[in-house]
Amino acid sequence: MATLCRPAVSVPEHVITMEETLDLARSRHADHPQLPLALRLIENTGVVTRHIVQPIEETLKHPGFEDRNKLYEAEAKARVPAVVQRALDDAELLPSDIDVIIYVSCTGFMMPSLTAWMINTMGFKSDTRQIPIAQLGCAAGGAAINRAHDFCTAYPDANALIVACEFCSLCYQPTDLGIGSLLSNGLFGDGIAAAVVRGKGGTGVRLELNGSYLIPKTEEWIMYDVRATGFHFLLDKRVPGTMEPLAPALRELARHHGWDASDLDFYIVHAGGPRILDDLSTFLEVPSEAFRFSRATLTEYGNIASAVVLDALRRLFEAGGAEHTSRGLLAGFGPGITAEMALGRWQVAQSAGPKK
Amino acid sequence: MATLCRPAVSVPEHVITMEETLDLARSRHADHPQLPLALRLIENTGVVTRHIVQPIEETLKHPGFEDRNKLYEAEAKARVPAVVQRALDDAELLPSDIDVIIYVSCTGFMMPSLTAWMINTMGFKSDTRQIPIAQLGCAAGGAAINRAHDFCTAYPDANALIVACEFCSLCYQPTDLGIGSLLSNGLFGDGIAAAVVRGKGGTGVRLELNGSYLIPKTEEWIMYDVRATGFHFLLDKRVPGTMEPLAPALRELARHHGWDASDLDFYIVHAGGPRILDDLSTFLEVPSEAFRFSRATLTEYGNIASAVVLDALRRLFEAGGAEHTSRGLLAGFGPGITAEMALGRWQVAQSAGPKK
Repeated sequence: MATLCRPAVSVPEHVITMEETLDLARSRHADHPQLPLALRLIENTGVVTRHIVQPIEETLKHPGFEDRNKLYEAEAKARVPAVVQRALDDAELLPSDIDVIIYVSCTGFMMPSLTAWMINTMGFKSDTRQIPIAQLGCAAGGAAINRAHDFCTAYPDANALIVACEFCSLCYQPTDLGIGSLLSNGLFGDGIAAAVVRGKGGTGVRLELNGSYLIPKTEEWIMYDVRATGFHFLLDKRVPGTMEPLAPALRELARHHGWDASDLDFYIVHAGGPRILDDLSTFLEVPSEAFRFSRATLTEYGNIASAVVLDALRRLFEAGGAEHTSRGLLAGFGPGITAEMALGRWQVAQSAGPKK
Repeated sequence: MATLCRPAVSVPEHVITMEETLDLARSRHADHPQLPLALRLIENTGVVTRHIVQPIEETLKHPGFEDRNKLYEAEAKARVPAVVQRALDDAELLPSDIDVIIYVSCTGFMMPSLTAWMINTMGFKSDTRQIPIAQLGCAAGGAAINRAHDFCTAYPDANALIVACEFCSLCYQPTDLGIGSLLSNGLFGDGIAAAVVRGKGGTGVRLELNGSYLIPKTEEWIMYDVRATGFHFLLDKRVPGTMEPLAPALRELARHHGWDASDLDFYIVHAGGPRILDDLSTFLEVPSEAFRFSRATLTEYGNIASAVVLDALRRLFEAGGAEHTSRGLLAGFGPGITAEMALGRWQVAQSAGPKK
């Protein structure tokens, strides 16, 4: 039985507040006909602070796709190891205990992926499997959990390491002036998360069932336009409304497992924006409070893409975790539009006391 | 038991011969101080013909990263479905029988990946898992087989679809003049391969064990430099010599399974270049003839990246397959430097006669 252990999370040291974001929008887009709408949308996100890898003055410049990718690589190499080490420590494992590294990131591109560098520099075995995923966007956090679950189902003694490394600020495109871009400029933040899925033992979410769902005919609603200037994030205005068609898939997965999606003990979902959380509350018929961990991530860090779901889970751990055997749902949402969903029970390792 | 069924392969209609390649090198790089070496290296590849998605005149232009990616997307959408349909037909399955699509491609970048479009347009279920991999390069063909094997090990009734779509000609960089680039310009070709891994039944390679191996400290030997002009392929001159350090990993995997890597019935490996095949023959102590399927792919199509290993397997099928229960090795090699290796036995489905 695979157990998703306590995630470690790190956000960069440069902070931008909501007020600074709004001021920037006002000064940079003073003549934009939809400025009032953009300001209102940004305010509605509820994102109070975001953390970014460079000072905001540098973030607003675009030094070119090449320099941005080099910066992505340098920052990933500087920041990922400590987060991974904490995740390993929390799972009480060594690098040599890991059988597969699932590295998800959509905000920089390297080939080989960071997995090769990690194996060479951090003491992972040379036969560690590498599963780098760059094309599932914000859904990749859920996908990483689910592929780790699958791997430990295939190899019950195996352990998987998940890393979500997202520097969304390195995808800022100053020339993108659509309303979706202006909103995105106020929504996304940077963050790194790592967690271990242990095949045996461990405290956390014992994964029982996972599933994927693609909302038909929405593949252009969240996408990258790939250009010489890098990845241009395109966000359709219909995206915030996608929880209505997705909620039945979440319900169906739970029903298939003999559970009721409206009556679970904890919910750890991707916080793409406030409407996502509000609508899930409505369509799953659960109290808004159920999404407090996801909302806290959104408020304090912004949308940190694939790392959100792991950060929300970290917050559940820090709140003392859940009751042993209590039931929960995890889900990432992203381009496709894809949902990567998981059901599991909170498990306290027999050797460990409850972490309070 | 997961069985890798007959791959379907398609190469584009535009052909460039070795002689045309040499003529182009002579005319475009007449003043290059290392032209004689480049010509010799290209001749040594043994690549007689390559197939590319555009006429050579168009291929030699660089319309920009954006246009190239758009072309990648258009060509993939135009060409992938027929190949996938043949792979499904050969495996006697419908799109609705597929549980996971593993789409590997390092020569164009889309988010969402082509998996979303395939699910929407080809009749795959909305709950089909998507595993897009862009960062394992030529090793991704082996990785796709192995991750499909893992998935079917976790879910024995599941079926996986593998797609390798590589348009290497869309990564041609006219300004790259290093000797590794000149060689690459004469080595790589375009091709699409697809195959089904059936959880139950099927004729082909019954997958028994897989493994991965990263040669320490070689992560910069095969890599992309990511620039405004797209992916720039960097090939270190030490790469052709990597089978010496890799052969022991192949031997060890076989030994772990109670097999002798020098004494198997078939070998299906990535044909990165002729030296790879020659050295494998030497270091595994198997006759050169053992790599005839890989060599045929190299000769007729060039190095078609992640699609090579599937095309070489297709050639084994077309040669009549192997004896029921005979033992074989499959391997992809690529950036990292990573080997993705698999061991399996030829299996003829009980319902099917031997395919001759």
